[in-house]
Amino acid sequence: MSDKTIFSVIGGDLRQIQVAKSLLLEGFQVKIFGFENYTGQDLFISCEKTLEKALAGAKYIILPLPCTQDSLTLNAPFSEKEIKIEKIYKKTEQGAIILGGRIPLPVSLRKGIKIIDYFEREELQVLNAIPTAEGALQTAMEEFPGTIHNSDCLVVGYGRIGKVLSSKLSGLDAHVSVSARKYSDIAWISANGHTPCHTDKISEIIGRFDIIFNTVPAPVIGEKELAAAKPGALFIDLASKPGGIDFEAARSLGISTVWSLSLPGKVAPIAAGEIIKQTVLNIITQEK
Amino acid sequence: MSDKTIFSVIGGDLRQIQVAKSLLLEGFQVKIFGFENYTGQDLFISCEKTLEKALAGAKYIILPLPCTQDSLTLNAPFSEKEIKIEKIYKKTEQGAIILGGRIPLPVSLRKGIKIIDYFEREELQVLNAIPTAEGALQTAMEEFPGTIHNSDCLVVGYGRIGKVLSSKLSGLDAHVSVSARKYSDIAWISANGHTPCHTDKISEIIGRFDIIFNTVPAPVIGEKELAAAKPGALFIDLASKPGGIDFEAARSLGISTVWSLSLPGKVAPIAAGEIIKQTVLNIITQEK
Amino acid sequence: MSDKTIFSVIGGDLRQIQVAKSLLLEGFQVKIFGFENYTGQDLFISCEKTLEKALAGAKYIILPLPCTQDSLTLNAPFSEKEIKIEKIYKKTEQGAIILGGRIPLPVSLRKGIKIIDYFEREELQVLNAIPTAEGALQTAMEEFPGTIHNSDCLVVGYGRIGKVLSSKLSGLDAHVSVSARKYSDIAWISANGHTPCHTDKISEIIGRFDIIFNTVPAPVIGEKELAAAKPGALFIDLASKPGGIDFEAARSLGISTVWSLSLPGKVAPIAAGEIIKQTVLNIITQEK
Amino acid sequence: MSDKTIFSVIGGDLRQIQVAKSLLLEGFQVKIFGFENYTGQDLFISCEKTLEKALAGAKYIILPLPCTQDSLTLNAPFSEKEIKIEKIYKKTEQGAIILGGRIPLPVSLRKGIKIIDYFEREELQVLNAIPTAEGALQTAMEEFPGTIHNSDCLVVGYGRIGKVLSSKLSGLDAHVSVSARKYSDIAWISANGHTPCHTDKISEIIGRFDIIFNTVPAPVIGEKELAAAKPGALFIDLASKPGGIDFEAARSLGISTVWSLSLPGKVAPIAAGEIIKQTVLNIITQEK
Repeated sequence: MSDKTIFSVIGGDLRQIQVAKSLLLEGFQVKIFGFENYTGQDLFISCEKTLEKALAGAKYIILPLPCTQDSLTLNAPFSEKEIKIEKIYKKTEQGAIILGGRIPLPVSLRKGIKIIDYFEREELQVLNAIPTAEGALQTAMEEFPGTIHNSDCLVVGYGRIGKVLSSKLSGLDAHVSVSARKYSDIAWISANGHTPCHTDKISEIIGRFDIIFNTVPAPVIGEKELAAAKPGALFIDLASKPGGIDFEAARSLGISTVWSLSLPGKVAPIAAGEIIKQTVLNIITQEK
Repeated sequence: MSDKTIFSVIGGDLRQIQVAKSLLLEGFQVKIFGFENYTGQDLFISCEKTLEKALAGAKYIILPLPCTQDSLTLNAPFSEKEIKIEKIYKKTEQGAIILGGRIPLPVSLRKGIKIIDYFEREELQVLNAIPTAEGALQTAMEEFPGTIHNSDCLVVGYGRIGKVLSSKLSGLDAHVSVSARKYSDIAWISANGHTPCHTDKISEIIGRFDIIFNTVPAPVIGEKELAAAKPGALFIDLASKPGGIDFEAARSLGISTVWSLSLPGKVAPIAAGEIIKQTVLNIITQEK
Repeated sequence: MSDKTIFSVIGGDLRQIQVAKSLLLEGFQVKIFGFENYTGQDLFISCEKTLEKALAGAKYIILPLPCTQDSLTLNAPFSEKEIKIEKIYKKTEQGAIILGGRIPLPVSLRKGIKIIDYFEREELQVLNAIPTAEGALQTAMEEFPGTIHNSDCLVVGYGRIGKVLSSKLSGLDAHVSVSARKYSDIAWISANGHTPCHTDKISEIIGRFDIIFNTVPAPVIGEKELAAAKPGALFIDLASKPGGIDFEAARSLGISTVWSLSLPGKVAPIAAGEIIKQTVLNIITQEK
Repeated sequence: MSDKTIFSVIGGDLRQIQVAKSLLLEGFQVKIFGFENYTGQDLFISCEKTLEKALAGAKYIILPLPCTQDSLTLNAPFSEKEIKIEKIYKKTEQGAIILGGRIPLPVSLRKGIKIIDYFEREELQVLNAIPTAEGALQTAMEEFPGTIHNSDCLVVGYGRIGKVLSSKLSGLDAHVSVSARKYSDIAWISANGHTPCHTDKISEIIGRFDIIFNTVPAPVIGEKELAAAKPGALFIDLASKPGGIDFEAARSLGISTVWSLSLPGKVAPIAAGEIIKQTVLNIITQEK
């Protein structure tokens, strides 16, 4: 990978603009397409006029996260016109590698082109847990009329987001309990200084907590748990669809809930863009 | 102080509503006045019809923080009509104690009445630094497009707010430098795990920082410092008037600044109300 | 598992005494054997006279960690006489379960008896990382003439011990770098607030560090790394045999090294005993 | 203060050797006296033969901490012969400044000589709290058979040592309560994330704690408190004479106590020497 290597960044939001800027700063050649409506003054390259020009000579084509909402059209909020993903696949030159987040597989792919989903990379998921956790804290600060300091918080689930979030809650001097099911997760919760509890027993202890963060994409906070909650408790669901909180039951019980999705791009687009860029560079290094 | 002791909470915002609720929960008798327009369903006492009724029999009269904006009228955003502070002084019964935050002294005071400014209490100032610091973090999260995690932060000043804020920034895994002038403050900054620097030398190092929090109510961040800042740096001023950042210079240099004042009541009214209540109870305990 | 369930704790050091005490406190019946020379006053049961009596009626037989040093004799420092492991296997009653740490498999086992190695349990390994990390800190405090506070520390490897140790070093306000090889480990090191570096590049940066902790059981700190170390740097090896530091090279270079093994039993026998007991109970719960 | 400025370091332990080394490294001229029996190979200057030679031309004479145990003889463990403090005063040249820790005032002092006690400097006391706190942790790790992690710790007193120690205990994931008397200290204990309690009520809660650290030089832990302690609890007294724990009562109750004094010089002589050097340089800067 030399300074002559051409990257083509096509579509996406502020994160992809950061990817393009950051690759430029590292000394690579960068072409962009699909950002005509971006009005920021900080992007020192102009959009290519056509998709063909944007792909010409590009060794690496970087598509956004998520690539698409409808599995056909590229997710390109700053673009004037629709960009079809199949068209990108068709126009990509031999020898190029297409990297996208949650990228749909093409109907058929010409030989000599490779497609890689960077969203499947463990390091991206781990690093994305940082802005997700900060976004959850921001939401809690905005919605909760007390302080995080000295509040009693429950984090449901001890995967990547649960780990980073509970550590940051401790860093803000909350009292942090974390629920999990596996004995080894329970051990890690203790080892990291939090109070462990079993996810099946949440309803027995939920009345103690001021703020409950769910990270498990399965129905763990149902009517029983909601009914046992402390008056005024705040529920924040960070789990992707279908989420883990029974929102209907919460509404009928008059309980505050917030479902926060896709936080990295919303609360920290520059950080989230850097994470995508770094992951892409890791993939490229390993591919060679 | 028995359960029969009557507290009268007069005027103020959500914090004073919390003061009233919390005193009730501790078993005291509580009268309120000046909250007719409060629509929350959580206040289980109704407003007295007149100031006289509200003051009748009250041993402790609690006024808000700040008591007044114009030194005449009580700060009472939930009240339908104006309440004159002098009128409160006049109608207060013999033997009562009036407790207010930044309370103005009366023109003349009848014998047997005592006025105490709870804002002068060290413990209130210390505890208020907690919601202030969290409010500053919330502002930073909302305004800064990166994450606090791994960002380079400078806290100017190591008084109460500087101490609590720098500790919480560390808790979120920022890299924290703190500036001060006294050798003993520099020692405490080191002892608490931060990087110390001298306030006079900020201009030499300011280019390293992503977010700069000022806590000093004196002109410490002037044109020289602003001009040397990193592009995209965010300045948050937490100092009371006149503040410590030259906002005009910042504007002409196109630098983002936020002046965040009175954060406790805004970001965490329940916590801030609890702090007032606790301070009032401390004062009463010592007065006896 | 009722209160009538009989546990038999046979052999081991202070950790197994804690296992016996703690099971008693939870209401179980406990028999012990192999502790005749223990002089502490805190053990409220007396040793059985013979192995047969100790095993009679026992549903669970708990052996120490490690079970044996020579694969024949039980590790029983408080016992007057040798206890052969095969003899335990032979005398154990039908339906019983034998639980030991690094337990050797018997030549032949009678039907109806089960052998389980509790050292293979993930939760035991995770929880053991806590006393191991504290033991490493204690060693560093004892051997290093500066403070951990503000020192530059390198942790080599980000497995269980690396994770817990680097978190505790941060908690003591050291500047913590951690080396690993996998991108996902590098991401976790960042997410947990430490400075990541690649294990292959240690020799380039090792000159910055005051204390180097190795946790990798492979030759990672060789002559090249040692020669590049800062004068006065302290090396602590926590990796099991063969360790990761070239001790001969260190000696000839006059570099301080400490090889700390089996820390949990040495520095925190009560905590380490609790961990064994908890793991044993987890196993029993799952076995049913 | 130029590079030609001569410092004379007279007497003391490893800390003063570090002072001499560190001043040399900063480019000053350094003479030493009273270290003939020091056998380390790291001191690249040789001792002056006589006190007169050591003092000749010296602008700053640095004496140890404490200067003396008997108010007559210099505290000089590496010296072959006794050095009388009055003799130092007598032979010091006009215009020189003598800096010592807990330095006794001379019977009479010639004009043009100044004596400064660097132990009275706030920054030295603050910075010394760091090695003191680490020494306390080391003692706790050595003496307590459980882990600090997850243990219940009480710190009595919230002065400098109490502040640093409780913060480090939290950093090791202990559950930390701190006792104090003043409302503002109670507020700081909360603001720093610990559980506050009143020093007068220790006897009511002491039964919860595994390790009790006293930092108050007054009788706060008497028979009542000791009798109410948890079996196996460890008491560590960090207060200078007369200490704060009733050691006789503890002995008769069979309770483990450790009285740890002068920790900085013992556990971290290099760090403690650096603190003295830095304080001396601060004083000199202000004197000019």
